[in-house]
Amino acid sequence: MWVDVPEGSGFGPENLAFGVIAPRGAGARPAVRIGDSALDLVALQSAGRLLGAPRFLGTTLNDFLAAPRAVWLEVREELRALLAAEPEPADLAALIPLDECEMRVPVALGDYVDFFSSIEHAANLGRLFRPDGDPLLPNWRHIPVGYHGRASTVAVSGTAVRRPSGPLGPGDFGPTQMLDIELELGFVIGGPPNALGEPVAIESAADRIFGVVLVNDWSARDVQRWEYQPLGPFLAKSFATSISPWIVPIEALEPQRVAGPAQEPPPLPYLSTEQHWNFDIALEVELNGEVISRTNARSLYWNAAQQLAHASVNGAVVRPGDLHATGTISGTAPEECGSLIEIGRPFLADGDEVVLRGVGGAVSLEAVAGRIEPA
Amino acid sequence: MWVDVPEGSGFGPENLAFGVIAPRGAGARPAVRIGDSALDLVALQSAGRLLGAPRFLGTTLNDFLAAPRAVWLEVREELRALLAAEPEPADLAALIPLDECEMRVPVALGDYVDFFSSIEHAANLGRLFRPDGDPLLPNWRHIPVGYHGRASTVAVSGTAVRRPSGPLGPGDFGPTQMLDIELELGFVIGGPPNALGEPVAIESAADRIFGVVLVNDWSARDVQRWEYQPLGPFLAKSFATSISPWIVPIEALEPQRVAGPAQEPPPLPYLSTEQHWNFDIALEVELNGEVISRTNARSLYWNAAQQLAHASVNGAVVRPGDLHATGTISGTAPEECGSLIEIGRPFLADGDEVVLRGVGGAVSLEAVAGRIEPA
Repeated sequence: MWVDVPEGSGFGPENLAFGVIAPRGAGARPAVRIGDSALDLVALQSAGRLLGAPRFLGTTLNDFLAAPRAVWLEVREELRALLAAEPEPADLAALIPLDECEMRVPVALGDYVDFFSSIEHAANLGRLFRPDGDPLLPNWRHIPVGYHGRASTVAVSGTAVRRPSGPLGPGDFGPTQMLDIELELGFVIGGPPNALGEPVAIESAADRIFGVVLVNDWSARDVQRWEYQPLGPFLAKSFATSISPWIVPIEALEPQRVAGPAQEPPPLPYLSTEQHWNFDIALEVELNGEVISRTNARSLYWNAAQQLAHASVNGAVVRPGDLHATGTISGTAPEECGSLIEIGRPFLADGDEVVLRGVGGAVSLEAVAGRIEPA
Repeated sequence: MWVDVPEGSGFGPENLAFGVIAPRGAGARPAVRIGDSALDLVALQSAGRLLGAPRFLGTTLNDFLAAPRAVWLEVREELRALLAAEPEPADLAALIPLDECEMRVPVALGDYVDFFSSIEHAANLGRLFRPDGDPLLPNWRHIPVGYHGRASTVAVSGTAVRRPSGPLGPGDFGPTQMLDIELELGFVIGGPPNALGEPVAIESAADRIFGVVLVNDWSARDVQRWEYQPLGPFLAKSFATSISPWIVPIEALEPQRVAGPAQEPPPLPYLSTEQHWNFDIALEVELNGEVISRTNARSLYWNAAQQLAHASVNGAVVRPGDLHATGTISGTAPEECGSLIEIGRPFLADGDEVVLRGVGGAVSLEAVAGRIEPA
């Protein structure tokens, strides 16, 4: 291969993550990451390369994502072949070091749905919010509970997070004093959209789930506690959701695909599949340079295919560029949890910097980082 | 005026509602309604008319909505002048009878937020869902409670609504047996977006609220009851939200602007304004040709400016093309309510047709209609 990939990079030819770069002095455009460089797909196609792929145009990956899965796989093969062959001058010219690129949110988001798919997280929060009740609400084991989040504030890793102000209680308003993180995976939807009224069958999940990003669903717990009844979280979550810039294709995560935990009661038919949609991805939370939690996505109770089938079982259209996040990924012990409230750490102070990382075997998810600015 | 406007049309030159038409044999394009015709804004500009306005391009009104309020007002004046003057051949050619047009959703929706702003509706539902408690939850009088709805299923009036299936309880799945309507107003956002982290001040509401549509927020009550804890409604609302096709500018509703009800406790500073943001708009619900409820938007407890200020007080970006719905508009008596569950009517049967209408003085909101198809 003619591109140097540092040892342990996680972004070798087995990954081929897609993103949107804004190289110095140029407009945003789709790219593929290889090692510490980005391959500018618009430049490649302008030079007559990669012409089997759909045209990479515009400032997002939506057109590419909207193509059928067969096209995703074909483009992946073409890119591998291109990287393995002797480079043409156009190939060399299209390779841009990452440190010369700003990253952009890689998709024009349609609907962003955030689920609540870790049983450990749901139970941990249940114990905190409802100490006298059953940690899990009655519906939790029957359906992948989720809600629609705000699309306008999904931001790329590195975007500063200003401490939000909001209502905190009767007559009480001000900057949140309980600013928290939530470590999540986000599944980016692709493929031609289903028609209104026609659910996506769970067995078709592979045709509609393109890839994975890391998500930090920043949360203001004091706002959340006050506002969430009866319509769910709103301001507590809508000020910022950070995602990693490179979408790692599901294809790249095949070696990490694992069976999920047993589900009891057995899921309803629309949520039942023999396919494995859990992924062995080691995750960690770093706060100001110190790793404060380590967990793994493999034990998520509800998986990505179940989330997708649920979101559209009522006939809702799921569009390329939608994002389905898992909700906080936690284990049982505090040091295996994905939020500060569960880890038992103080909430975030101004100036704190949080980095979430994911490593799935030979494949990396780029970190998602954010620093807290004062209100 | 050279266009004939039928008596009582509500779409005379004092209205000038904007929409997106798809004339027979032509692509979708922005238009203004006058009487029973649409004035094709793309055709007008191609013919050298209305050149003071931003270019009307594409299949949505988003570019126009993104312009500052001064531009909205200027275009309105230009359109009035054009309609009052002797028509040029290009003007006559751009006038298309509505019965030769299909209507489209007029905006590419960013975020759709649905509020819960009628105190009567909140109390009615509180009594039904929590018969032993206070009808209003503790936060209700302090903040305009709301949640993010699904953007992908916002559909234009006339779109058939297929009865959705969904989870109804433990092990129970099937077509909803409690299909309901919700009569709402929807405020369409315009103006240049605020920067991330910079709330929209309530006094700037006029710069960001472009106009009004009618909304039918179809709801599956059995799904809602089962799923809504703790993250709010999801599948119960995400299968369809119908809106009227013509956005009536706030400017057209000036004569109907009224003071809202007194608010106790006094609203927090970010929700306080001397401006009036309630509108005297008579509303009715028609079921299979029979009017079953009549109400008025004037008494909504939380108003459009408060909803906007709330949605962005945490710094969330509000974009042109966003939709802020009021939640169900109800009075105290059953026959003044905006949902079947409150009116005390049976839930919708297959084949039922619902039409919601709004009349604000001399200005009409186009009806929003929908017919229920079997699961």
